[in-house]
Amino acid sequence: MEKILEKVLRRVKPKKLDRERLKKVADGLVKRADDACSELGVEARAMLVGSAARRTWLRDERDIDIFILFPENLPREELERKGLEVAGKVAGRRGREQFAEHPYVTMKFKGFDIDLVPCYDISDPSKIQSAVDRSPHHQRYVEARLTPELTDEVLLLKQFLTGIGAYGAELQVQGFSGYLAELLTLNYGSFRGVVGAASTWEPGVVLDLRGKYPDLEEARALFTGQPLTVIDPVDPNRNVAAAVSMQNFATFVRACQSFLNNPGERFFFPKPVKLLTSRQMSWVLKQRGTTLFCIVFDRPDLVPDITYPQLRKTERALVTKLTRAGFWVLRSDVWSNGKALLLLELSIAELPRVRAHPGPPVTVKAEDFISKHLRSKHKLAGPFIDEAGRLTFEVEREHARGREILEKALEERTAFGKHVAKSLAKGYKIYDGQRVLALARRNKGIRRFLSGYLTRCLPWHR
Amino acid sequence: MEKILEKVLRRVKPKKLDRERLKKVADGLVKRADDACSELGVEARAMLVGSAARRTWLRDERDIDIFILFPENLPREELERKGLEVAGKVAGRRGREQFAEHPYVTMKFKGFDIDLVPCYDISDPSKIQSAVDRSPHHQRYVEARLTPELTDEVLLLKQFLTGIGAYGAELQVQGFSGYLAELLTLNYGSFRGVVGAASTWEPGVVLDLRGKYPDLEEARALFTGQPLTVIDPVDPNRNVAAAVSMQNFATFVRACQSFLNNPGERFFFPKPVKLLTSRQMSWVLKQRGTTLFCIVFDRPDLVPDITYPQLRKTERALVTKLTRAGFWVLRSDVWSNGKALLLLELSIAELPRVRAHPGPPVTVKAEDFISKHLRSKHKLAGPFIDEAGRLTFEVEREHARGREILEKALEERTAFGKHVAKSLAKGYKIYDGQRVLALARRNKGIRRFLSGYLTRCLPWHR
Repeated sequence: MEKILEKVLRRVKPKKLDRERLKKVADGLVKRADDACSELGVEARAMLVGSAARRTWLRDERDIDIFILFPENLPREELERKGLEVAGKVAGRRGREQFAEHPYVTMKFKGFDIDLVPCYDISDPSKIQSAVDRSPHHQRYVEARLTPELTDEVLLLKQFLTGIGAYGAELQVQGFSGYLAELLTLNYGSFRGVVGAASTWEPGVVLDLRGKYPDLEEARALFTGQPLTVIDPVDPNRNVAAAVSMQNFATFVRACQSFLNNPGERFFFPKPVKLLTSRQMSWVLKQRGTTLFCIVFDRPDLVPDITYPQLRKTERALVTKLTRAGFWVLRSDVWSNGKALLLLELSIAELPRVRAHPGPPVTVKAEDFISKHLRSKHKLAGPFIDEAGRLTFEVEREHARGREILEKALEERTAFGKHVAKSLAKGYKIYDGQRVLALARRNKGIRRFLSGYLTRCLPWHR
Repeated sequence: MEKILEKVLRRVKPKKLDRERLKKVADGLVKRADDACSELGVEARAMLVGSAARRTWLRDERDIDIFILFPENLPREELERKGLEVAGKVAGRRGREQFAEHPYVTMKFKGFDIDLVPCYDISDPSKIQSAVDRSPHHQRYVEARLTPELTDEVLLLKQFLTGIGAYGAELQVQGFSGYLAELLTLNYGSFRGVVGAASTWEPGVVLDLRGKYPDLEEARALFTGQPLTVIDPVDPNRNVAAAVSMQNFATFVRACQSFLNNPGERFFFPKPVKLLTSRQMSWVLKQRGTTLFCIVFDRPDLVPDITYPQLRKTERALVTKLTRAGFWVLRSDVWSNGKALLLLELSIAELPRVRAHPGPPVTVKAEDFISKHLRSKHKLAGPFIDEAGRLTFEVEREHARGREILEKALEERTAFGKHVAKSLAKGYKIYDGQRVLALARRNKGIRRFLSGYLTRCLPWHR
């Protein structure tokens, strides 16, 4: 295992030159920000935070986060105005204003992705006004504790998480953030310590680095329903792992188990998804014997952190509709990149016309139920009493094909993501069965997505 | 309602001539039995019991039950030997020995079905040795209480039960016995009284005519799980309604509700099942969109009371097998008359090849599970972690067609009725889909059965 980790580290650890290059850019930007504050007469100072500041960035990462800290008594409105003014002066024409919980500026600069984020410089982190106000505290907490040796361990963990597809707290991933990886490493002392511990985790595990909760049950009650809880050392009311989904939690635990059982570089650098040819795709579809429905439409013009939750919500609404109508959805997925795509795989895409329609229990009078259904043109048989004593009619199913349910749901758009619903209202196309091949031929992104879907597999088993 | 009941009574109540004819035959047989006892030097006496003795027989009924009562200290072996001797002498060459709980003789005589049943003359009915020993006690209990007016009410109730298909305690019917109908009438004072009360019954109702249980909860606990409990007035440990299935219980309650709501002769004399032509049958099958499987084989040479439970048991075994394999059985039924038939109607008769195969929970190591399925030639996708955090493979289903499951189950014959299994071992034929039409064309009994199945409906709604 030693050798594997050494090899991995050689590939992911920034070289001296990388570090110097990043330092030069980051220092230059911090200075420009401080200068801008002086020039504009703003009482604020710039601070480099995040992995760039802590030397826990992977060689491929290109993120530099610079926070501009304002005094905490400044009214929020002014913070936003002045913050954007400073950031705008630093970024110049390269800058793009973004809106998360509050506004900030991004820019591409010398090959780096720069975030310029105004925030409050708050002394007690439990009294923050916005999530971004926590970052300087995180910075100080980790900086004070992370030795150069531990930095290497963080890099290994981050690359491991990247390899298994569980790195990133954004809503598209719902995985482990860089800060979470740093805390786990601090807690267990090494990459191997983390892996050993996590291999025995069960859902509901709670880590409390600074012992903020003398009784862990209290923390467990507070963060109930979350597969992993890591109490934020700078704010005991916050779970650093709040973004981690059950799926990514289990993926990480399984990866740790498998890695201990049979370590290998494949966990850190898995093979990419193999692109299927049309012929292969057609063969796999036939072999599965299911019916695939791809709903393709124009992607709402929004950041992935908004698009993905809305796509997932829409996916859930469709799965629920289909399931309620008696269909079996084997799997489903969403994808977005230029176009947006909802994918539903039905085990059974067409049901028999007849379905049983049970009436009230025997203690409830049923004359109205009976006379209503006796008159209905959809009645096929009944009323009769089944073995369990239930009054039953057999009636014609309104929609016997999954496609009909889908089309109806796409017209109604109930419980869909708001912007996704808007995009769908403008138009969509449903490709089903072997017709998805045409779609995959036209769009390489979709081909990659479908290839991954059809050969779905944990990355280290590819 | 008065008029309806009068009309019904005119049709079902035996005329004076019917009564005289039956009396003559019954009296003659009782005398012959007593004479036979004397001639053979047997210390026993004959007794007319059942509906013939109580004037509660419907005009169409042709049953005469004569019991031969032996002293209770006679060894069982001797009772059987002497009983058959006496019965044999009465019946002569017409007699046929039967074996229920113990042996008796039946014969056809002057248009009647005669049962000649040896039993013990036991003073305390809670100490009976065999169920037949109770009949003389039932006879005395009912005889002492049933006025001529109440006799008419019993006839109405029996015909009502006949009309709705719930008359008869035999295992093929699992309904209400004649004795049960008499007790219900005694308890509620009239046919209308019974119907009014039963229309509000819920499963678990307990009737205790002689107040043998001061606390009805005790009786309820004793006969738990039975939809209807009527404590036998001559034996508090026995539920007279033990044979009544949940289906027949609910049918009776619904019939009473509907009769009160809209009375009519149709409850007593429903239209017969309409025979479907081949064309109609084909159309109904298409309209339902399901797949029908008829398994036809030689009926085991046994009385219906043994054949039917075995057919039902076999039916349940097949339904369970199919359901476990992922198929939906919409309905099923059995039939027997010369040939025997198992009918299974599948909503979905063919499943996709792929099925999800979940592994152990995340807290259980899964390396063996993973490596086993990775090597399997039936693997289609996986391992992956689903949304709920479950490790999952997608594998090829062993049997994707319902017919394969059926054929396998018919070869294994696990949990089948014993004699049915034997008959099936000798050979069977499966007819599916539209091929059942050929079957219905060849056999009128099967045609009637299938017609009833496909247009299934409570008799009074035909």
